[in-house]
Amino acid sequence: MHPPPGTAADKQEKRGKSGAHIHLALIHFPVYNKNREIVASSVTTLDVHDIARACKTYGIGGFYIVTPLAAQRLLVERIVQHWQTGYGAQYNPTRQEALLNTRVENTLDDVVEDIASRFGEKPRTIVTDATAFPRSVGYGKMRDVLAGPGQNLLMFGTGWGLERGVVQRADYLLAPIQANNGYNHLPVRAAIAIILDRLLANR
Amino acid sequence: MHPPPGTAADKQEKRGKSGAHIHLALIHFPVYNKNREIVASSVTTLDVHDIARACKTYGIGGFYIVTPLAAQRLLVERIVQHWQTGYGAQYNPTRQEALLNTRVENTLDDVVEDIASRFGEKPRTIVTDATAFPRSVGYGKMRDVLAGPGQNLLMFGTGWGLERGVVQRADYLLAPIQANNGYNHLPVRAAIAIILDRLLANR
Repeated sequence: MHPPPGTAADKQEKRGKSGAHIHLALIHFPVYNKNREIVASSVTTLDVHDIARACKTYGIGGFYIVTPLAAQRLLVERIVQHWQTGYGAQYNPTRQEALLNTRVENTLDDVVEDIASRFGEKPRTIVTDATAFPRSVGYGKMRDVLAGPGQNLLMFGTGWGLERGVVQRADYLLAPIQANNGYNHLPVRAAIAIILDRLLANR
Repeated sequence: MHPPPGTAADKQEKRGKSGAHIHLALIHFPVYNKNREIVASSVTTLDVHDIARACKTYGIGGFYIVTPLAAQRLLVERIVQHWQTGYGAQYNPTRQEALLNTRVENTLDDVVEDIASRFGEKPRTIVTDATAFPRSVGYGKMRDVLAGPGQNLLMFGTGWGLERGVVQRADYLLAPIQANNGYNHLPVRAAIAIILDRLLANR
């Protein structure tokens, strides 16, 4: 049964089915490399395409690619431009559509500021980690949080994962995708697709 | 509450949580191209890595890459060998682990025959399509089917989708991932990750 139109319950139900107040950041610094050193990882151009298409599929408000390396930001901006307004826009309109909400930022703070300036409030921050922590929350609980008021930022680390301090400062920590099967090495683009589906799929 | 150990209900519950009797085929022929012509698409080497890791994450029995092009089969076999026993096995053992159940076949019939010869029975065949058909089944129903006896083959088309005849001959047709949001252009590697999660995630 649906709640009566216009009521708070109705608004919450509709909101729970839309991703417009949820944003996603793909973070290239600070992340770990194979040797557990903190580095700026390289942008994988295929991640840009794949994740933009997943974001579009689930109606995500904005997709941010975060890197402090100016040359890499320029590269991503050129890719995005090619598909948004260049030859790519004619060649593949579905890709153009996917990339319309894609942005490039220098730092995670810049992402938070951009969301705050566009929506009038800072987002709550949510990270995933391959490890389960005492404060990790499940996907059902997170769906409830996302259906409430406010903006949200899902943060994903590249390389060998987000620097520990970023994880600790996040408002919410999501449970690992498959906690207990002994193998946890999904590509970040696959993890993002699965997590968006768990949090936002039509049910 | 769990059913008593050793009972049929217990076996079915365990089976429902394992992917060992589920196999996956990534099909490069017969598929459509952009102009709706039937073609053999090129193998994307990144698909091989991404999908192998998703299969390993969900415990899939075997991952088959299907192409009638001998040069492409050779290419995939070289990639798989590099990570299984070549330098890659030392460099990245988690990738080696992911690729251990990866095989290359000439045709879809060869995949079915391989499964039949290894397990003593042909698999039921399951395809997904971006379009909903009258006989499409949902993910809850499919989980029940997969928890029952027998081998299963999930088939995914590359390019612009599996040739219609292959879809029509399949035993089951899975419902589209996001049927009613107006945008349905996920990369096949993302669609596979989401579908394996829906069918096999620990709950």
